[in-house]
Amino acid sequence: MSVTFPKGFQAAGVAAGLKASGKRDVAVVVNTADPDRIAAGAVFTSNRFQAAPVQWSRRALASRRAAGAAPRAVVLNSGGANACTGQPGCRDSARTAAAARALLGLAVDEDVLVCSTGLIGEPLPMDKLLAGVAAAVAELGEGRERQCPPGPDRAGPADSDGAAEDGGHTTFGRGQVAPADSDGGARAAEAILTTDTHAKTARCEVGGVRIGGMAKGAGMLAPGLATMLVVVTTDAVLTNEQAQQALDQAVELTFNRIDSDGCMSTNDTVILMSSGCSGVTPPNFTADLARVCHDLAMQLIGDAEGASHDISIEVRRAASEPGALEVARAISRSNLFKTAIFGNDPNWGRVLSAAGTVPPSVAPYDPDQVDVSINGVLVCRGGQGCGDRDLVDLSGRRVEVVVDLAAGQAAATLHTNDLTHDYVHENSAYST
Amino acid sequence: MSVTFPKGFQAAGVAAGLKASGKRDVAVVVNTADPDRIAAGAVFTSNRFQAAPVQWSRRALASRRAAGAAPRAVVLNSGGANACTGQPGCRDSARTAAAARALLGLAVDEDVLVCSTGLIGEPLPMDKLLAGVAAAVAELGEGRERQCPPGPDRAGPADSDGAAEDGGHTTFGRGQVAPADSDGGARAAEAILTTDTHAKTARCEVGGVRIGGMAKGAGMLAPGLATMLVVVTTDAVLTNEQAQQALDQAVELTFNRIDSDGCMSTNDTVILMSSGCSGVTPPNFTADLARVCHDLAMQLIGDAEGASHDISIEVRRAASEPGALEVARAISRSNLFKTAIFGNDPNWGRVLSAAGTVPPSVAPYDPDQVDVSINGVLVCRGGQGCGDRDLVDLSGRRVEVVVDLAAGQAAATLHTNDLTHDYVHENSAYST
Repeated sequence: MSVTFPKGFQAAGVAAGLKASGKRDVAVVVNTADPDRIAAGAVFTSNRFQAAPVQWSRRALASRRAAGAAPRAVVLNSGGANACTGQPGCRDSARTAAAARALLGLAVDEDVLVCSTGLIGEPLPMDKLLAGVAAAVAELGEGRERQCPPGPDRAGPADSDGAAEDGGHTTFGRGQVAPADSDGGARAAEAILTTDTHAKTARCEVGGVRIGGMAKGAGMLAPGLATMLVVVTTDAVLTNEQAQQALDQAVELTFNRIDSDGCMSTNDTVILMSSGCSGVTPPNFTADLARVCHDLAMQLIGDAEGASHDISIEVRRAASEPGALEVARAISRSNLFKTAIFGNDPNWGRVLSAAGTVPPSVAPYDPDQVDVSINGVLVCRGGQGCGDRDLVDLSGRRVEVVVDLAAGQAAATLHTNDLTHDYVHENSAYST
Repeated sequence: MSVTFPKGFQAAGVAAGLKASGKRDVAVVVNTADPDRIAAGAVFTSNRFQAAPVQWSRRALASRRAAGAAPRAVVLNSGGANACTGQPGCRDSARTAAAARALLGLAVDEDVLVCSTGLIGEPLPMDKLLAGVAAAVAELGEGRERQCPPGPDRAGPADSDGAAEDGGHTTFGRGQVAPADSDGGARAAEAILTTDTHAKTARCEVGGVRIGGMAKGAGMLAPGLATMLVVVTTDAVLTNEQAQQALDQAVELTFNRIDSDGCMSTNDTVILMSSGCSGVTPPNFTADLARVCHDLAMQLIGDAEGASHDISIEVRRAASEPGALEVARAISRSNLFKTAIFGNDPNWGRVLSAAGTVPPSVAPYDPDQVDVSINGVLVCRGGQGCGDRDLVDLSGRRVEVVVDLAAGQAAATLHTNDLTHDYVHENSAYST
């Protein structure tokens, strides 16, 4: 159900012919609640080449906020990034928003945010895209059973259709996704995929508030942000400021802590929309949101192009958290480290030589005090080899690298993957 | 002849059993000139995990300089990096220098610099290494025909045994290397190789002054420095300060402008030794030195592990040279760009998205003004696609990417290579 799990949201995904494969490629997510109770926040790529939809959505969100309102819908397409397409590309994003606004009967074009993903530099096939938007809007009605109550509603939790776990949270990740034709949320999640091997959705319910999300992304995953499109919805009661602040914090701890190949996209967008339909402002909303975002982020890194190992790099006892993160990032970006893991080689020397590129001003530590463990085996103590590296078992998919800097009390964990023949193949054989 | 091309140097390379292959693995280069006329400079890796030989050589050079002298010999070994080996590793480097000092009859241990390359984290087999040093020193006599004259000698140019070209310069690169058994310089160049496919030497003669060099390095090539060992010799008359200054400038413009895989080694060392035997202090020594260093650097990047394309990235019309270099570096480190080139795909979108990660504070430019050409074809004008990308011919080995930022008058060129299946194979199948 993904984005349709919280009350007050509808979604649809259709095949409009943007993808040569004929698969779904246009999605619409609509916040159906009373405009007076809704809110939205978003985080966009920090790449200086900002795709036209990013430029549109950034301006639209600011414009609606300035008016004390929030955008009410998102149109997403795969099959074309509409990036590096100049003024014509900007006009196309604006036209997309205008068309959706008219079809949905919204007040202004800026009520519609736009996201695109696919090949950079090609104009979108606008006839197909606009027909797809119309088809998606027509499909929205199917999801109306989970509508927002007419007024503020502080009743108990909404119906839970999953097993409660972990203190009332109910989170579904990969593998528990509903069949694509069962609801609009699942179809929307499918329509935003590019080289992803499967749809990525997550949801969580706690204290009567639901959060649901969908994500796409399988390469170009890097900080600030990865190449990914994410829409998260909630029926929590939030202000625009609360929504933005919670999203900023959640993104920093989740999507900005995955780094697949160090490449930063022109189109990255994470959008949060709240309907307020639960009538509840949760006390720990940021933590709940971060849980859903973490779940989606782990699905993204787990589906990274061509990866054969999911690697977590935890840097402990750093002098500061940013310093710990920079050391972890240097390791995660070392092609030599990443190819070693692909070869099931616990090459701690490559861990150290990557860590050694971070300046002392960023992460002070004494190289002669650094320990490294790989999958629980201490392979380097005090900057030199120890123990038996042959004891490290890298035959499984999961790899845990722990670097202890002995320089403080801060820590950070980054998630990445190995560099494989399949990565080279996928990214050399296909344009993106 | 490499390092034995200038007058006043001897070299040898022997097989001491450090390499399982039985190939040459220990080299010695000796400055045979009067200690009063010699000079030396060196540049070491900026990695914080400094291998024991780097720590030794850094201290030895400083110590000799403080005494108004200069080191007189370099011992180099492949088959083991002696990095991340703790105090025992430091003792091994000191023992190596002490043994060579005794064999060569030099004054102090610090007259001998030490370089090692190979697997990180393993102790050196010292018995084999010391036997190899003894064997190499015993072989040195073979090169005595090109000895330093007994006193200052301002005679004309030394004998030239190559064709003069380009204003009196005579530079030999890859392919013109003398057979390995013909002289000690060639044998030394062979003894420092690891995954290199061939020896790398260069020489230059201008105005009576000769410069000769050898280098190793095929992966982990990155700024500040690449994983490489380089020894350059000259018979120019230089002070220690002149030698260091010239080397700093030459390295900045050559070895620091190649970036194979963004990985920085623990062992990188570039050493310059001058014998003064030409009796000449050349007016443009830095330029001549940079020519030899450039030649070696191009051989390094051309032999980068698994590469199928040699890529130059020129950033033009930047506001500053450091800014231009940072943009070029961001592109050269994009795995998506590098895999696209491997696939013969002129994917300018990946060029832009990499360039877009450099902050405006480092390289100010307007994304809507950026042009990109690949192998002479303008594929992006003003931040958007133009022309016919199908016209770009990437079937050859050489790829020239030109990025025009339209933001100033500065420029910089960086040399890199593509990311291939062979790179993944070499670096996943073998420990280094």
